[in-house]
Amino acid sequence: MERLLTGDRVTGKLHLGHYVGSLKNRVELQSQVDSLIMLADVQALTTHFEQPDQLAHHLKQVTLDYLSVGIDPNQSTIFVQSMIPEIAELTVYFSMFVTINSLRHNPTIKAEAKENGYEDLYYGFLGYPISQTADITFCKATVVPVGEDQLPHMEQTRKIIRRFNQLYAPIFQEPQAVVGEFPRLIGLDGSSKMSKTKGNTINLDATKEEVHAKIKKATTDPARVRKSDPGHPEVCPIYSYHQAFRKEAVTDIYDGCTNAKLGCVECKQMIAASINHLLEPMRERRNIVLKQPRQIDEILEAGTARARNIGKQTMEEVREAMSMSYFRRDIL
Amino acid sequence: MERLLTGDRVTGKLHLGHYVGSLKNRVELQSQVDSLIMLADVQALTTHFEQPDQLAHHLKQVTLDYLSVGIDPNQSTIFVQSMIPEIAELTVYFSMFVTINSLRHNPTIKAEAKENGYEDLYYGFLGYPISQTADITFCKATVVPVGEDQLPHMEQTRKIIRRFNQLYAPIFQEPQAVVGEFPRLIGLDGSSKMSKTKGNTINLDATKEEVHAKIKKATTDPARVRKSDPGHPEVCPIYSYHQAFRKEAVTDIYDGCTNAKLGCVECKQMIAASINHLLEPMRERRNIVLKQPRQIDEILEAGTARARNIGKQTMEEVREAMSMSYFRRDIL
Repeated sequence: MERLLTGDRVTGKLHLGHYVGSLKNRVELQSQVDSLIMLADVQALTTHFEQPDQLAHHLKQVTLDYLSVGIDPNQSTIFVQSMIPEIAELTVYFSMFVTINSLRHNPTIKAEAKENGYEDLYYGFLGYPISQTADITFCKATVVPVGEDQLPHMEQTRKIIRRFNQLYAPIFQEPQAVVGEFPRLIGLDGSSKMSKTKGNTINLDATKEEVHAKIKKATTDPARVRKSDPGHPEVCPIYSYHQAFRKEAVTDIYDGCTNAKLGCVECKQMIAASINHLLEPMRERRNIVLKQPRQIDEILEAGTARARNIGKQTMEEVREAMSMSYFRRDIL
Repeated sequence: MERLLTGDRVTGKLHLGHYVGSLKNRVELQSQVDSLIMLADVQALTTHFEQPDQLAHHLKQVTLDYLSVGIDPNQSTIFVQSMIPEIAELTVYFSMFVTINSLRHNPTIKAEAKENGYEDLYYGFLGYPISQTADITFCKATVVPVGEDQLPHMEQTRKIIRRFNQLYAPIFQEPQAVVGEFPRLIGLDGSSKMSKTKGNTINLDATKEEVHAKIKKATTDPARVRKSDPGHPEVCPIYSYHQAFRKEAVTDIYDGCTNAKLGCVECKQMIAASINHLLEPMRERRNIVLKQPRQIDEILEAGTARARNIGKQTMEEVREAMSMSYFRRDIL
């Protein structure tokens, strides 16, 4: 059976961009592959080390988001990254044979460093492709769903795995990167990506009214002032939401907009209704979980315990491969 | 009670340079402070990642050297670095707020990189001052005996500790670096440091005959060809050995050499005899241990178990300080 590793940095609530980009897929795949879903709190520290106090809150919020979209803890293993010390250990071992320059040349690291305004890189930030390799290898994941911006990291991961296998023993398989159908959802403000830092999202826990209000205020084709002006769907975020959430109606919307028959107000009402239709069962599941919130901890504890066992087994193999199984480890 | 952390990279047998530089002190201090002695196998990988297969052998050899010089496992805790995952975890956490430039500016890193012929630095190698900080903090060491070349690392360690305490909570004390009386012993070839890579050492397990043979071949003052030529003790490694091992006779040796009364052959015989006198009880202890070699494993297992417990307690505090104690950890 394939093993899938995926996850999210725990820096805030999840939104529709996460849903179409990955959550939807996870729900569909969880009955077919062994799914591990990581709450990436350590990776969140690479950019948020000055404010870790929100991690615990976000961790539980994100888990609630997972459960609300239909991730089933009996099928998917949800676990906390910082509670798997084997990830830190693998990070240290891989660090020995990865050069600073190969990390510096990673285009995503460059772009993100610029975005964060780092004049001088932090050591942990520069090394996060190594840490991601440890995330993937500790559980021997074979399939890793990623955004396009993560493809350079996956290439680096494959290189690190090849080098490890060649130096010590071929215990790791090169994972397959899978890019989703909608790797990016356009933001409500028309910017290229729905992103919590830009405040242009519809969160998964949005109420009916919030969805309508947010869609109402969303940017549309700026060249279309009156309903009688023909619109340009390809530059309109609302049209992209129809593509993501109302596939069956896309042709009608396109025609109505370009022929100046369908007005923006009506078009927005339709997509808001569809989004609410999508979110309604999520709201119901969320409310059920919130009646017994202690189950969030229980789910995370059980998932983390399972991930931990997988990590222990992998580290046994790693120590064996590196000739570092000095004596019985179970005494410790 | 003060806690002392010290240790050795497990890359080969220990020699007289280690003895005067640190082992002698450790034996003297073990009844006064809580001594933790680390077998630094992970740090050895920063330069030896391509040949880890010798680690297990060296690990046990170094432990045997420790026992032979009189380190008492009932007083000192000897443990294996790679078996303390908390060190890897702390390394990862500290990595978040240490910049690449501050590591690059470390003069010892620069010098060692040059010595190893690295054109491009390895990530793990560049980061080893962070890893050393983790070694020191996982056990909250208050005293760290170091060579002079390690002083820049200790400065970096103190900076990392201050930053951690300021970012999260003041749980770590800044450790005191203690430089030994003989931080460097001159090599048999007259080069500045006795070093296994230069092959200019007298190992602690040298036989009587080996000591005589090695001292006989050792470099002396090159300007002194005949006994009747006055010598220059300050450039002679043999004289430095008298300083290290025969303090009581140093004035006589100096006078005899500079007055051309004491010949090199006789001078060498005296120091070889003294070194053998020093090594003789070590040989005896070594032979006793070797009659029951299984005790080496037992000592390492017990020491590592103790260190592991200390590490677990520290990590609990670290998680608490970083607001990352999400739920009961003992279930894992």
